[in-house]
Amino acid sequence: MSLARRPFNFAPGPALLPEAVLRRAAEEMLDWQGSGMSVMEMSHRGREFTSIAEKAERDLRALLAVPPQFRILFMQGGGLAENAIVPLNLSRAGAVDVVVTGAWSQKSAKEARRYADVRVVASNEADGHTSLPPPASWQPRPDAQYLHLCSNETIHGVEFQTLPDLKALGSDAPLVIDCSSHILSRPIDWPKVGLAFAGAQKNIGPAGLTVVIVREDLLGRALPACPSAFDYQLVAENRSMFNTPPTYAIYIAGLVFEWIAAEGGVAALEARNVEKSALLYDALDGSGGFYVNRVAKDARSRMNVPFFLRDESLNEAFLAAAKERGLLQLKGHKSVGGMRASIYNAMPLEGVQALVDHLQDFARRHG
Amino acid sequence: MSLARRPFNFAPGPALLPEAVLRRAAEEMLDWQGSGMSVMEMSHRGREFTSIAEKAERDLRALLAVPPQFRILFMQGGGLAENAIVPLNLSRAGAVDVVVTGAWSQKSAKEARRYADVRVVASNEADGHTSLPPPASWQPRPDAQYLHLCSNETIHGVEFQTLPDLKALGSDAPLVIDCSSHILSRPIDWPKVGLAFAGAQKNIGPAGLTVVIVREDLLGRALPACPSAFDYQLVAENRSMFNTPPTYAIYIAGLVFEWIAAEGGVAALEARNVEKSALLYDALDGSGGFYVNRVAKDARSRMNVPFFLRDESLNEAFLAAAKERGLLQLKGHKSVGGMRASIYNAMPLEGVQALVDHLQDFARRHG
Repeated sequence: MSLARRPFNFAPGPALLPEAVLRRAAEEMLDWQGSGMSVMEMSHRGREFTSIAEKAERDLRALLAVPPQFRILFMQGGGLAENAIVPLNLSRAGAVDVVVTGAWSQKSAKEARRYADVRVVASNEADGHTSLPPPASWQPRPDAQYLHLCSNETIHGVEFQTLPDLKALGSDAPLVIDCSSHILSRPIDWPKVGLAFAGAQKNIGPAGLTVVIVREDLLGRALPACPSAFDYQLVAENRSMFNTPPTYAIYIAGLVFEWIAAEGGVAALEARNVEKSALLYDALDGSGGFYVNRVAKDARSRMNVPFFLRDESLNEAFLAAAKERGLLQLKGHKSVGGMRASIYNAMPLEGVQALVDHLQDFARRHG
Repeated sequence: MSLARRPFNFAPGPALLPEAVLRRAAEEMLDWQGSGMSVMEMSHRGREFTSIAEKAERDLRALLAVPPQFRILFMQGGGLAENAIVPLNLSRAGAVDVVVTGAWSQKSAKEARRYADVRVVASNEADGHTSLPPPASWQPRPDAQYLHLCSNETIHGVEFQTLPDLKALGSDAPLVIDCSSHILSRPIDWPKVGLAFAGAQKNIGPAGLTVVIVREDLLGRALPACPSAFDYQLVAENRSMFNTPPTYAIYIAGLVFEWIAAEGGVAALEARNVEKSALLYDALDGSGGFYVNRVAKDARSRMNVPFFLRDESLNEAFLAAAKERGLLQLKGHKSVGGMRASIYNAMPLEGVQALVDHLQDFARRHG
């Protein structure tokens, strides 16, 4: 590693990791704490790896203040697989309600239809996924086994600022949240939640690990078609060792959890994320229309900021100039176009400031 | 890393990796080839990671001489999940034949029953999983969608030395092999095979990656209950990027493939594995009964060597003395007991020799 400063990587996931985590992983690669083994080489049932997995679980529980009646599961498959695994475990082949706020909740609704009677009870499709449908307008079904929403839409940059209280809407259904792209960036309001899941590759660690946090009373409902490797009950009973878990990804996640704690925990990161996202949105909004973010202000994500250049013929020049400044992976998702800056926990304020400088310089040169 | 020599790690998986691979991974951790990114931080759809994944696939194809009509898929879930994913993709909810030779094929039969009409057409259960049922005695069903076997049983140490020719048994069913624990240790006889799968954590790389090699004509048969993330057709069409793949595990696997090629390829490793396993079995058989391996000689695995001390009260002393010599993770699987030495590709002859020295010294002291 010869670079004086690492570039700032705005990828939506897999994404930037804290440099301290990468340095420690490199140092421990051949010999984890005198064990003579790389973490990749450890039996998942051995003393060494068990201690790593248990510490990771404990640290995550502390960081997110997960109540004792919730189980933390380390699984495989990512968000897309989890869109099937959730209804396989919770739907009872009955009614499932979904709130659509972007590409990811749309995928969830589609996938759940394999197993359940799915109804979209609210959607922001009419405005191109740029707003949050007010919970008072939702009409959850009384027989719904659960209601699913994506609390932060990675592609469309739409984030719930507070979770809905389903009880206040007259529903007893557990709330399922896909919080893949903002987990650990803010607290989770557990009394409102039945299950939260997150692919690791944004705020947690490497791709290939999925974290599922599920209320105990929701275990044991899996459909016969649920592969045993994905049956929450079996995974919970076996402390995520029912099958071989993605051991190295769990180890890296554990290092990230330690890093978050050292940075002051989720509250400190949330304050930083508020500051970072305000800096970026202010620059976009203050560009006199040179850049546009189309998401309603109360729905804007602190993590994923999609934006467009008014003159899209400048897109390639914008990306090339960004790369020269060490600002990487800013191209928007193919389904949306334009640009997207993902500014997860590991992105320092300095990185967002460097992006804002680029936005302003580029606008000045091409405005 | 201050050890003069790394210990020899006989874990069944996750398992020993080549030291050269770990050193390279450590060196590249913060900056992969001047990209300014760790491989863990790369978008899976970006130019850099695409080049890593394509090279890994190409190298694996070359090493195993995979014919062009087979597709190589990088997936998640490990062997246990694959036991469900195979019938979800291939069973058509019809007849599935299974040959039981140990714990893993037993699990496969059990899991497939969720989706298909499963029949065990041959089994070595009567002799405690220590032999190979001769293919001439199998009676595959004419309407079987496929026949499943585990070509190397990790727990029971039973390995097919040649694959059966189902056509010669009057069956047109595709042969599905779970080759998790001996892939890349010997060639695969592709004309006899419809699908081969392997969890990575033995001979390929870190846990969390599953390699599936499937004949193209078997794609597109998935049941409606198959999660789209695990639909072979979708995964193949999207070059394993339908969902976010376990990117870092694929990178490490690619480094292992490069290491195998540098060592002389699969043929060279096979010769070494023959030598290593013969050295170990000869030591066990020549111990005058102090150590016993109960597997029939023509069924003995070159990869996983379970054995027992005649006097099992010495087990703890045996393991403690082994650890003192830097011989790690020799304890047998809980369902079998005793000891097990897993001597995968990455285990050098020197490691097996060190184990044999320990076997002999320990027998001398306690015989």
